[in-house]
Amino acid sequence: MQYPLPIAHLIDSYMKLPGIGEKTATRLAFYTLDMPEQDVQDFAKSLKEVKENLHQCSICGNITEKDPCEICSNPARDQTTIMVVEQPKDVMAFEEMGEYDGLYHVLHGVLSPMDGVGPEEINIKSLITRLQKQDQVKEVILALNSTPEGESTAMYISKLIKPAGLKVTRLAAGLAVGSDIEYANSITLKRAVQGRTSL
Amino acid sequence: MQYPLPIAHLIDSYMKLPGIGEKTATRLAFYTLDMPEQDVQDFAKSLKEVKENLHQCSICGNITEKDPCEICSNPARDQTTIMVVEQPKDVMAFEEMGEYDGLYHVLHGVLSPMDGVGPEEINIKSLITRLQKQDQVKEVILALNSTPEGESTAMYISKLIKPAGLKVTRLAAGLAVGSDIEYANSITLKRAVQGRTSL
Repeated sequence: MQYPLPIAHLIDSYMKLPGIGEKTATRLAFYTLDMPEQDVQDFAKSLKEVKENLHQCSICGNITEKDPCEICSNPARDQTTIMVVEQPKDVMAFEEMGEYDGLYHVLHGVLSPMDGVGPEEINIKSLITRLQKQDQVKEVILALNSTPEGESTAMYISKLIKPAGLKVTRLAAGLAVGSDIEYANSITLKRAVQGRTSL
Repeated sequence: MQYPLPIAHLIDSYMKLPGIGEKTATRLAFYTLDMPEQDVQDFAKSLKEVKENLHQCSICGNITEKDPCEICSNPARDQTTIMVVEQPKDVMAFEEMGEYDGLYHVLHGVLSPMDGVGPEEINIKSLITRLQKQDQVKEVILALNSTPEGESTAMYISKLIKPAGLKVTRLAAGLAVGSDIEYANSITLKRAVQGRTSL
């Protein structure tokens, strides 16, 4: 005897999520069975709506319900600065910080030749087109992750857009606030020394 | 700026699952956004179907698409033995084992006064009614987990049904096959010695 079909299908669906294997998927499926009817209906509805109602902004590539997105269509934001990030989540992180009021450009990934991700697979082309059109832009901040892929993507974009006379910057690297020197890796320490500031 | 509403709703839904906090829920929600349309539609559909198409069997309490369930309505199964288990998952485990061809009774929980679970909250009453009706039953196997709650639930049921002259058994306790004596806890070792068998 196998699991009843509806449970088997739900286990398959849970297993498609990252980091969830068969055991966990089975546990989640049986848990779902005991959840209040309304919660499960809401769950199903939110899954559908996330695919149906969210799209990429045609200007910056961020996910949005309306196009262009709230940030791109807000004239109060600083139109001279574009911050290039990897993921929509990064936009949320900088917005939560609350100190930045420029625009964004979401790449939806980083260059990774090993995984078959070249410049055509991420939103680099739309960034170039955008910079050609929006000539009020003065600075491009490359806010990519401090990973080998993030760094090489930053170098690639920098080489493409620097000739146009734009200011290209990247985020400061150094010790995380509240962290211990003894636990920092040596590359982080090297960057922290290189980028030391006067008191 | 907050997350777009559809994403926020999906994060809330994921957070209702056991062991999933806000960070993981956010990661899963953004992952869902990048999943193939069809997979997400299937996921939503299987969530709804698990609530709509699965019910408790009116005889044994196992989850089933039709009532009575396949096992209860199968005359080829041994009608003289009922195995009492905690969860539908336990039925699947014994069915996968393939050695048992009697009937089941699913309690959907164990007695746990600390959590407010008394005899009324689990399927004990329906077991008693069933034993009164199905007088061909000779043996009741209490296959409950080896936890304090499982053991006390077994004792409780045993006291209720033994006076009716039924054979009441429980699963053998001892060393798990393939396990090391040095890592076994002392209660398990005690049970293994008590239940030793001759070669």
